[in-house]
Amino acid sequence: MTKADVLDIAKRARLAAVSLASVTPKQKSAALDRIRQTLSERRQEIFNANKLDQTAAKEQVDAGKLSASLYKRLDITNKDKFESILTGISDVERLPDPTNKCTLATKLDDGLELYRVTVPVGVLLTIFEARPEVVVNISCLALKSGNAVILKGGKEATRTNAVLASCIQDALASLGVNSGVPSDAVQIVETREHIDVLLDLDRYIDLVVPRGSGSMVKYIMNHTRIPVLGHADGLCAVYIDKDADDKKAAKVLLDSKTNYTAACNSAETLLVHEDVVKDKDRLAFIVSPLLENKVVLKCDSFVIGVMKEVFGSQYPQQLEAATDEDFDTEFLDLIMAVKAVPNVHEAVAHINEHGSKHTDCIVTENKEARDEFLTRVDAAGVYVNASTRFADGFRYGFGAEVGVSTNKTHARGPVGLEGLVIYKYKCYGDGHAAGDYGSEKRSFKHESIDVANVNQV
Amino acid sequence: MTKADVLDIAKRARLAAVSLASVTPKQKSAALDRIRQTLSERRQEIFNANKLDQTAAKEQVDAGKLSASLYKRLDITNKDKFESILTGISDVERLPDPTNKCTLATKLDDGLELYRVTVPVGVLLTIFEARPEVVVNISCLALKSGNAVILKGGKEATRTNAVLASCIQDALASLGVNSGVPSDAVQIVETREHIDVLLDLDRYIDLVVPRGSGSMVKYIMNHTRIPVLGHADGLCAVYIDKDADDKKAAKVLLDSKTNYTAACNSAETLLVHEDVVKDKDRLAFIVSPLLENKVVLKCDSFVIGVMKEVFGSQYPQQLEAATDEDFDTEFLDLIMAVKAVPNVHEAVAHINEHGSKHTDCIVTENKEARDEFLTRVDAAGVYVNASTRFADGFRYGFGAEVGVSTNKTHARGPVGLEGLVIYKYKCYGDGHAAGDYGSEKRSFKHESIDVANVNQV
Repeated sequence: MTKADVLDIAKRARLAAVSLASVTPKQKSAALDRIRQTLSERRQEIFNANKLDQTAAKEQVDAGKLSASLYKRLDITNKDKFESILTGISDVERLPDPTNKCTLATKLDDGLELYRVTVPVGVLLTIFEARPEVVVNISCLALKSGNAVILKGGKEATRTNAVLASCIQDALASLGVNSGVPSDAVQIVETREHIDVLLDLDRYIDLVVPRGSGSMVKYIMNHTRIPVLGHADGLCAVYIDKDADDKKAAKVLLDSKTNYTAACNSAETLLVHEDVVKDKDRLAFIVSPLLENKVVLKCDSFVIGVMKEVFGSQYPQQLEAATDEDFDTEFLDLIMAVKAVPNVHEAVAHINEHGSKHTDCIVTENKEARDEFLTRVDAAGVYVNASTRFADGFRYGFGAEVGVSTNKTHARGPVGLEGLVIYKYKCYGDGHAAGDYGSEKRSFKHESIDVANVNQV
Repeated sequence: MTKADVLDIAKRARLAAVSLASVTPKQKSAALDRIRQTLSERRQEIFNANKLDQTAAKEQVDAGKLSASLYKRLDITNKDKFESILTGISDVERLPDPTNKCTLATKLDDGLELYRVTVPVGVLLTIFEARPEVVVNISCLALKSGNAVILKGGKEATRTNAVLASCIQDALASLGVNSGVPSDAVQIVETREHIDVLLDLDRYIDLVVPRGSGSMVKYIMNHTRIPVLGHADGLCAVYIDKDADDKKAAKVLLDSKTNYTAACNSAETLLVHEDVVKDKDRLAFIVSPLLENKVVLKCDSFVIGVMKEVFGSQYPQQLEAATDEDFDTEFLDLIMAVKAVPNVHEAVAHINEHGSKHTDCIVTENKEARDEFLTRVDAAGVYVNASTRFADGFRYGFGAEVGVSTNKTHARGPVGLEGLVIYKYKCYGDGHAAGDYGSEKRSFKHESIDVANVNQV
């Protein structure tokens, strides 16, 4: 594939996006149905490609060139897994259509009406690693929201990704030219070099959605002018306030750290009010579950002293002195950096300085401390007495998750289909000229129209 | 000002933003009142600085180094102008507060509730040219939306900008430490070099809002990872369909082109259905007002032939052959590129290829052509039978305009205060752990809570 081929893919995606702008909900459903059907029918072909990928990857693992966890995520041949991919398509199909919703309507003047209507963003570029099912998942989310998508998967899954993409394209092509969904709506590229070409095409691509390691996401963010929806880091903190309920503290903390350490919404930093640290019974009660679950605590000088007094030589491998770096580290492991803070202000300041704006939690029964934390911590999710692990599109009830964004614009936190749409203003006039308005001329009426009464614009 | 000083400004803006996160509507009003009062009191000092700027600029104009129009926009000493700046502050104060609005609320489970609440974006960087009143206008919009702002104005207005910014900072400082609005909420830098430092500080700055020439905006977009809200180009088109009402066509076209040629929402391209071009009476009726108003029409080869037949030697200086480039040019003058198209599909394709996604208009009485145009043209504003000049925050009824965005994410079209806010998710639990949910465990309830019933979160 030459640079010109990649450019051609981007142009065709842009043209597909124009067609998709007028696709109906019914046409979307037909396309998703056909995709599910085609994947089901061509299951054996997909499995064959996936097994070849697995064999090649196994050699890499044995040679120490690929992680075992990446290898494990490659397999889509077991029955439950493949069925869950197919079920996922039906789940997306059943979600409410996020486009063509009127969110603002104003009568500017007699015969001059303005409507703000949700529309697809346009062309998405999604870059992901390992899991081949993302090809299907993201294609369906893109189609449901009326976007064209260009996909680039992990190189370990090249064969699987290619077959999955070809199934999707064949499914769309089989629907014919009047289906509303051109087969160019879903396209695939294979190498890092192709990505570098695409990242430069802000003229054709509207949004990049990277899903994978922090280093990959950072690379993307640093090499494109196109808006990027995602997160490079997930450095979440739990703050145990002096007015914490100790049982809630122990439970929320344990879950935030250990429920699934590899997730971006797992807690990496523990901030503890000094009064709690000083009260050895409280401290022991709150952190014991972590230690019992093999979590290594990297503590600041004050905390480590108290910990040693409290636990003696009980957890010799699990109590360490923290370095400054530990408070900026996403461990993704059974490790947690621990720091004492004198008050909620300092907890907030630490999080705003070191956190990644993902999800942070305060455990407290004190309304003032709670409100200060929730208001002043600058993060997509601010929690009181609940595990940071709830920061997830499915848990939030969105039905699907495009990704988690730590951006400060467009979409923030777990992003569902809403993150893949924007709006346009439709203005209906009757020969209206702006020059007719002004002082001593016509005035605007600016009467709000109830959007609940706007059926179709 | 050294690089370290600029870095310090950014850090102080970030800290100010944390304070502003909890500012109340009442505190905002008090701050805006005090700013208005201080500017009014220190009017003479402002005028003196402005006159010095004007004198220096006049020399530049005489030397041919500065445009007369830029010079003209510098003057804020005439009474109406200064009063309108003060009135503008009160206008912003009266707008509804865009923050702390609950836009989604869900009961995830008993005792576990999720609220999506609008919050300020954080720290804005605004870069503008010439007009010193932007210092006041943008500072007020930033404060009203709870954002800290760093301003950089045109160098011709350096003295005026400095005095205006110092009035604002003094006004904020005079309110005392419990005002909720720290004086660092509004800061100013003076040189292009400072901007280059700031554009690299995506850690402290959340959004760049450039207002000025296309080349300046393009420079900004190409030199920062920070999201940019604005538009480099305003290449708007009017398409006259075969089913256009000729009177509406003539009126909308004239207004779109001539109402204010220097504006980004003025039309630069005219697309005409071939049937209209061929019908000489229709063509003459529709374009005559343009020619009578001294508009130069740069026409494609087909159109120019008919034009010469229709108008003979009547407008010898105003009918020219178009080059390819003319259809990608924002003239900002009494010039328009004209092209014949065989149907609405080609009009849409031309606009999607050459337009700037700002505002485009179809003149037609045909519902199908209208719907195709409105749906498939990818622009912030798609109009039927109305001048592109209506694309403006005040005309849309937003009360204020931060700028016009041609982005495909976050905010699009004329942007009011809503473009300066984002949201965060606040989650209230009672010791909830994610590990308690799943198959054969607890299920989420995901019950929607009516946001109309949510008072304060």
